[in-house]
Amino acid sequence: MKKLFAEFFGTFWLVFGGCGSAVFAAGVPNIGIGLLGVALAFGLTVLTMAYAVGHISGGHFNPAVSFGLMVGGRFPAKDLIPYIIAQVLGATAAAGILYLILNGAGAFSREGVGAFATNFYDSPGYNNRSYSLMAAFLTEMTLTAFFLIVIMGATDKFANGKFAGIAIGLALTLIHLISIPITNTSVNPARSTSQALFVGGMALKQLWLFWVAPIAGSIIGGFIYRTLLQKQDNEG
Amino acid sequence: MKKLFAEFFGTFWLVFGGCGSAVFAAGVPNIGIGLLGVALAFGLTVLTMAYAVGHISGGHFNPAVSFGLMVGGRFPAKDLIPYIIAQVLGATAAAGILYLILNGAGAFSREGVGAFATNFYDSPGYNNRSYSLMAAFLTEMTLTAFFLIVIMGATDKFANGKFAGIAIGLALTLIHLISIPITNTSVNPARSTSQALFVGGMALKQLWLFWVAPIAGSIIGGFIYRTLLQKQDNEG
Amino acid sequence: MKKLFAEFFGTFWLVFGGCGSAVFAAGVPNIGIGLLGVALAFGLTVLTMAYAVGHISGGHFNPAVSFGLMVGGRFPAKDLIPYIIAQVLGATAAAGILYLILNGAGAFSREGVGAFATNFYDSPGYNNRSYSLMAAFLTEMTLTAFFLIVIMGATDKFANGKFAGIAIGLALTLIHLISIPITNTSVNPARSTSQALFVGGMALKQLWLFWVAPIAGSIIGGFIYRTLLQKQDNEG
Amino acid sequence: MKKLFAEFFGTFWLVFGGCGSAVFAAGVPNIGIGLLGVALAFGLTVLTMAYAVGHISGGHFNPAVSFGLMVGGRFPAKDLIPYIIAQVLGATAAAGILYLILNGAGAFSREGVGAFATNFYDSPGYNNRSYSLMAAFLTEMTLTAFFLIVIMGATDKFANGKFAGIAIGLALTLIHLISIPITNTSVNPARSTSQALFVGGMALKQLWLFWVAPIAGSIIGGFIYRTLLQKQDNEG
Repeated sequence: MKKLFAEFFGTFWLVFGGCGSAVFAAGVPNIGIGLLGVALAFGLTVLTMAYAVGHISGGHFNPAVSFGLMVGGRFPAKDLIPYIIAQVLGATAAAGILYLILNGAGAFSREGVGAFATNFYDSPGYNNRSYSLMAAFLTEMTLTAFFLIVIMGATDKFANGKFAGIAIGLALTLIHLISIPITNTSVNPARSTSQALFVGGMALKQLWLFWVAPIAGSIIGGFIYRTLLQKQDNEG
Repeated sequence: MKKLFAEFFGTFWLVFGGCGSAVFAAGVPNIGIGLLGVALAFGLTVLTMAYAVGHISGGHFNPAVSFGLMVGGRFPAKDLIPYIIAQVLGATAAAGILYLILNGAGAFSREGVGAFATNFYDSPGYNNRSYSLMAAFLTEMTLTAFFLIVIMGATDKFANGKFAGIAIGLALTLIHLISIPITNTSVNPARSTSQALFVGGMALKQLWLFWVAPIAGSIIGGFIYRTLLQKQDNEG
Repeated sequence: MKKLFAEFFGTFWLVFGGCGSAVFAAGVPNIGIGLLGVALAFGLTVLTMAYAVGHISGGHFNPAVSFGLMVGGRFPAKDLIPYIIAQVLGATAAAGILYLILNGAGAFSREGVGAFATNFYDSPGYNNRSYSLMAAFLTEMTLTAFFLIVIMGATDKFANGKFAGIAIGLALTLIHLISIPITNTSVNPARSTSQALFVGGMALKQLWLFWVAPIAGSIIGGFIYRTLLQKQDNEG
Repeated sequence: MKKLFAEFFGTFWLVFGGCGSAVFAAGVPNIGIGLLGVALAFGLTVLTMAYAVGHISGGHFNPAVSFGLMVGGRFPAKDLIPYIIAQVLGATAAAGILYLILNGAGAFSREGVGAFATNFYDSPGYNNRSYSLMAAFLTEMTLTAFFLIVIMGATDKFANGKFAGIAIGLALTLIHLISIPITNTSVNPARSTSQALFVGGMALKQLWLFWVAPIAGSIIGGFIYRTLLQKQDNEG
């Protein structure tokens, strides 16, 4: 039960910090934190919670991560569904508090591509560029695959595991540095779901991709690490 | 006594670095550090002092942290008042030096929402958005609660405690990335008090919230960690 | 073989993250990540992969690094060519995926100095400044020399080796903070080659410098560390 | 002798990276790294070299640090002058290379407050604010005092010493986040000297302050740590 609370609060923090920094602080004129600040915020939610509650639940905060770790042989299948439920509930609770705070300034809006930090594809977003469904899918899948490689590698028993929280958190920052302009960056179905639930419309219609592509990527990443990279006990 | 000196100098550094970067460097045209730089500065004051004097006093630098750690069973009640006095004195001394330096360029001003890095609510701040008292209270309370969860978790005996200074410092950066546009971010009554003392007026009238909300949040966070998350010795 | 896969995926990540952040996110108006974000992205690719697969291959992800470590006595000459092949293949695969994604928004272009994150010299780039061949060579050589000093020092058996991934990754960030406006920053022939292959023209004609100068620098750096800095076992 | 080479190369890197990022990359329109990028660069020069050569020389890279550590009882007086000479030579060599590279684009200039990253006071700099001699002195002295507190604390035998490179490097980033708009930030007489030598004029006339104030601050900081903060062996 403590594991599920840890996943609930950790995923709450990921959405509250990552999506919160995006909706409150990214676009302030001249001194706003921009996409760099949002990327840093997402990474720091994971870095901070990894050191805070990683020793309790393993610190997934992301259904795709739980899925990939199961494929990679690091997470028991019987815990998968409870973890995912705790993650989605935590994310949704955070989105609810963000909604209340934004409404306290009369600033909540469902309009516009990526409103309330929702994910999207095939729509004119940043730079007025519209990345196709295939480009969005490829991006989310590739990034989640590498996220899993970093996670499995940094927590490998042969690795320098105490630094895993830094490596994994900053990997999420890096992922956002690359891809916010493409899809608003998901790699995390819980984070996509919570925001889409409050916005509805197109965000809900496109939500499927932000479950399928990250989970496909996490399976690929878990498989790559397990088969091509992981050392065996009898290796050097 | 060394503990109190450590809290004095640590909180001095927090205000000198965090509020100092805001008043000197955030708004320089084109190349200013912006809210991202200020968020980084606040976090680095805590990260640096945690490694410098954390072994002396525990490195609170914040009355709400001392309060929450007491509730969480990690800090003796008898030390609470001396710690808070040292923190407020350190913060005020730093604000005094900031005042002298700013005056040396004729640039100190009491005018405008958030002048001299004061906290505020229900006033048109960044983006010209005005967050209501309730939104401000909810923000400060939620962020301080999670700050305490990170602090208690990262310093848990089952955790990877040597990294606590990084996790806690960067949690403060994250908190500022989210909420400077909402309240100028307090989560620390000492930091709010020192700035309000030099500015007076509305800043002093609104100061109560930046004691009540962070302390309420810290109690909630300390309680959540202790009851829902903390492992017992006989657990795995 | 696992070593070569580790170098392949690590160099893939370096190009996908570093060049990817540059082409997708740097220039978004008002909220783009800018050169600071790109510098951070390059460094984080190495930081994250160093902790993820450093225990497998040593984590070079760069032909100049492999070369310099061989000169410095830390890497066997027989592995040099296979490592460099794996690195160039990984970089090129990443550039291919970047090309596909960019094309998915109709945004791939060969035009302009530094297009698709290619390196350059003696051409009007950022600020409309044109750095001469000599200035570009000196920059790339000096930076790679110091990169090798940091790498060899941080992984020295007398040093605090567990932090090497942080020091080396952030050294690459620092290198980009200095030199993106000069040459778009290479210090890594694999990263230069992959981008030039897709752009052709001037980028291919100038590619030689981004093999010769980094490798010259890495030899100098490896030699300096080995002869002037490295402690002997019988020293204090 | 290896100690002096370590100080030479470390201070070279500090000036090449910190001042280099300022002159090449800070002011690029729209995507420049700004003062935040420069602050990060200065800090990363120290962070990276602390892990690379800190085990050789202690990693001062700054005459004021050597001075303060001597006062604090951590550095033998007999090594002070050789260290300072190595630091100033390293800084000057770096400034020479920066000069050559800038000249390679015809972009070296002696004109303007803070040209070539020189320090200054009582001159209209950023924001067109002119900080008085007293304000500049107070700023440099206070910041160097706290820099020494962080250095002595983070390397205390009771502290978590392996993280000292991170704490000290990021303390230098923090110091720059606060004070670039005030004096262009020295806290390091070697860094001020090298830049002033190439620019001459006002920069040389004002150089005295950037020796006196940092060294005064470092003495105060070393004294504060030793007398008010440092635990004795028989303490808890």
